[in-house]
Amino acid sequence: MMLKKLLVANRGEIAVRIIRAARDLGIATVAVHSAADTDALHVQLADEAVNIGPPAAKKSYLNMAAILAAAEATGADAIHPGYGFLAENAEFADAVAAAGLVFVGPSGDAIRLMGDKVSARSAAHAAGVPVVPGSSGRVAGIEEARHILIDTGFPVMIKAAAGGGGRGIRIANNLAEFEQAFPQAEAEALSAFGDGGLYMEKVIGRARHIEVQVLGDGSDAIHLFERECSLQRRRQKVWEEAPSAALSEGLRDRLCSSAVALARAVSYSGAGTVEYLYDDAADQFYFIEMNTRIQVEHPVTEMITGVDLVAEGLRIAGGEALRLKQRDIVPRGHAIEVRINAEDPARDFAPFPGKVGDLRLPGGPGVRFDSMLFQGYQVPPFYDSLLAKLVVHAETREAAITRLTRALTELSIEGMKTTKPLFLALAADETVRAGAVHTRWLEGWLSENADRLNDAQG
Amino acid sequence: MMLKKLLVANRGEIAVRIIRAARDLGIATVAVHSAADTDALHVQLADEAVNIGPPAAKKSYLNMAAILAAAEATGADAIHPGYGFLAENAEFADAVAAAGLVFVGPSGDAIRLMGDKVSARSAAHAAGVPVVPGSSGRVAGIEEARHILIDTGFPVMIKAAAGGGGRGIRIANNLAEFEQAFPQAEAEALSAFGDGGLYMEKVIGRARHIEVQVLGDGSDAIHLFERECSLQRRRQKVWEEAPSAALSEGLRDRLCSSAVALARAVSYSGAGTVEYLYDDAADQFYFIEMNTRIQVEHPVTEMITGVDLVAEGLRIAGGEALRLKQRDIVPRGHAIEVRINAEDPARDFAPFPGKVGDLRLPGGPGVRFDSMLFQGYQVPPFYDSLLAKLVVHAETREAAITRLTRALTELSIEGMKTTKPLFLALAADETVRAGAVHTRWLEGWLSENADRLNDAQG
Repeated sequence: MMLKKLLVANRGEIAVRIIRAARDLGIATVAVHSAADTDALHVQLADEAVNIGPPAAKKSYLNMAAILAAAEATGADAIHPGYGFLAENAEFADAVAAAGLVFVGPSGDAIRLMGDKVSARSAAHAAGVPVVPGSSGRVAGIEEARHILIDTGFPVMIKAAAGGGGRGIRIANNLAEFEQAFPQAEAEALSAFGDGGLYMEKVIGRARHIEVQVLGDGSDAIHLFERECSLQRRRQKVWEEAPSAALSEGLRDRLCSSAVALARAVSYSGAGTVEYLYDDAADQFYFIEMNTRIQVEHPVTEMITGVDLVAEGLRIAGGEALRLKQRDIVPRGHAIEVRINAEDPARDFAPFPGKVGDLRLPGGPGVRFDSMLFQGYQVPPFYDSLLAKLVVHAETREAAITRLTRALTELSIEGMKTTKPLFLALAADETVRAGAVHTRWLEGWLSENADRLNDAQG
Repeated sequence: MMLKKLLVANRGEIAVRIIRAARDLGIATVAVHSAADTDALHVQLADEAVNIGPPAAKKSYLNMAAILAAAEATGADAIHPGYGFLAENAEFADAVAAAGLVFVGPSGDAIRLMGDKVSARSAAHAAGVPVVPGSSGRVAGIEEARHILIDTGFPVMIKAAAGGGGRGIRIANNLAEFEQAFPQAEAEALSAFGDGGLYMEKVIGRARHIEVQVLGDGSDAIHLFERECSLQRRRQKVWEEAPSAALSEGLRDRLCSSAVALARAVSYSGAGTVEYLYDDAADQFYFIEMNTRIQVEHPVTEMITGVDLVAEGLRIAGGEALRLKQRDIVPRGHAIEVRINAEDPARDFAPFPGKVGDLRLPGGPGVRFDSMLFQGYQVPPFYDSLLAKLVVHAETREAAITRLTRALTELSIEGMKTTKPLFLALAADETVRAGAVHTRWLEGWLSENADRLNDAQG
């Protein structure tokens, strides 16, 4: 059965992206929007639109009851969560299913399994995926913790099992610090999360962020090769590319196979991403987490494989078995995505919402611009600052960087500051051009190159 | 040697396209423009711009002396003619070479050889390319003409050898008409062109227009498969696609090989197109002509092969040998291009220049929009009506047509009438969806479907 009417429980460029994919498959679309997004492009493009609440996301895009009511009112048979908002909320996936609707993505159980750091790590370990040395689950107490230090060495991270998003983390650089930090962390976790459970992981120093795109239908899974996303600022990816310049063919095979093994082990359904840290000095890769949703950077993979990942996710949600076999996935060329945000890179990336003045978009061969922008659009200040994803594709990494520079030069968004000057500077940087970066490289570069990030116009 | 500074002797979308390719290769660009194009996008995008004359093309874009003077003044080392204007003018190619500059395209001699119908036909015949049955060159007189009728049968076309663009053509349906028409045609050709030379060709009734993209470097040549352009109005292509739905693999091989044989035989340099009529009832193809320039519809081939044809042409012009081998050209999926013109399809395609109001561009995977449009742009009334080329790419022809419909639906150009409703109607037509068209099909369809071509907004 193919889906008939899809409600898109999101906004911005990803809502536009999902509406496009649905329309390519002949599926009718329902947009939901807050009162701040009445004129947004996703509302204009969808077949129907429902106002689900006031600007605050908690009352609109995170409002499960309002979204389910909109689906019922419009007769939608499926809900796509996009990324962010309710995308990795197992409770929402369960509620959608309980309402007799299709949730486009994995089951609530799969989201729950991968959303908990401890159970995700255990599942990866069980599937033969290398995990960062550390505890195999919750640490029973300080005695067991000391034993685990033999594997991890220092520095070691102590994390609250119930934490997330960087909360509840301590780092110990030696045994003395550890002996002091462990009981403190336990007490803090108990008070902050109502759960004193801790786990431990080796701190991987210089590493690359490499992730593998997978597609599963609940019984089988394939991979669509890797993306490298080592250029990060405060753990947020800003530049993503495929393939990774750091992988040998043998390593690529092992990495991608391990992602497929994990997806199969958890009967994964839909598009997902298995994220790794790759320590290129030690030639070791380690599982970090699995993102149980479509990712911001998915177009990079689409450009090199020719596969429409959102459309494949919709087909699978509609009950189709995986159409693509592993041998159908043949990468071609090199793709790079940069995130054009309404932020001022010269002022520590302060948000810069505003009204879009004269707009000039890049085009031509090998250039894709995924966005909700249009001239005259008032960017609301209530949500994340992503305005557009500029994606380029060319034969080689070098040609892709040159094309990226060309496309950035063509892009002009008057009326606001954007991250465009950051990417022009990065594309010209020798270390970036050599592909010799790691996840902490950009923050050092930013502190040294602040003066290069001024821009006359967005 | 790579080119250093390229003057683009054109305007509109193709000037933008060429500037993009040059920039992707690190070549500086010079735009030329008439007084009507001071604010045009190609002028905005180029590194330098020179006003070469008043709006009338004869005094600007066709003004060889002004263009050569602009090249000298800016220190350009090469000139790209684009398509139209001076693109197939052998005298211009010679003048560029005589000025010590590189002409991006074949030699003046190759342009001349292919520009003359008789010599082009002879060259094709000599290279083993099937030509339409008819005279092997100029017909010596009525005696020889009667002999040629044995091959051609009726109806037969009598053409002035010095004619062009449909001028100097007569069609005879039987011997009586022929005996009367031949001497009349001779006398008319003499008075119209100062040259009474005639040649004859069989009239091919229902046929498809199929053309093969070639790339040559003067010593070797390859093909990049075919495009089908059977949807034409008054011999103007409006919808182009690749691959052709009409070709078997065996026929495709023969067609493409014959185009390469012709390109090699004339030591072709740059991007060119060998055009054929394909009579699918008789399973016969016939050479029509060779276009010695980049064509409007080149992106269709770029989408399925991943090759940037304009960039390859610039590399070759810069003295590089062909980088691509025939085995490197691997087609993927299906691509369709439609020509978005500022014309009112509901009023016999009357030109409709105007000022671009609110503009919404299609996007997402598999969509490319090559254009010189921007919101606020005043389309001048002096030149052709092409506003944009919307190109889509998908796995199959059916998926490409669906994606085309989706992208057309997203496209909104307020302020003028466009050909968008024509393409929405064609994309929904059963005959088009079945791929069962020929070069005269669209005109019949248009006379029956005039009422479907109204559009509330461009």
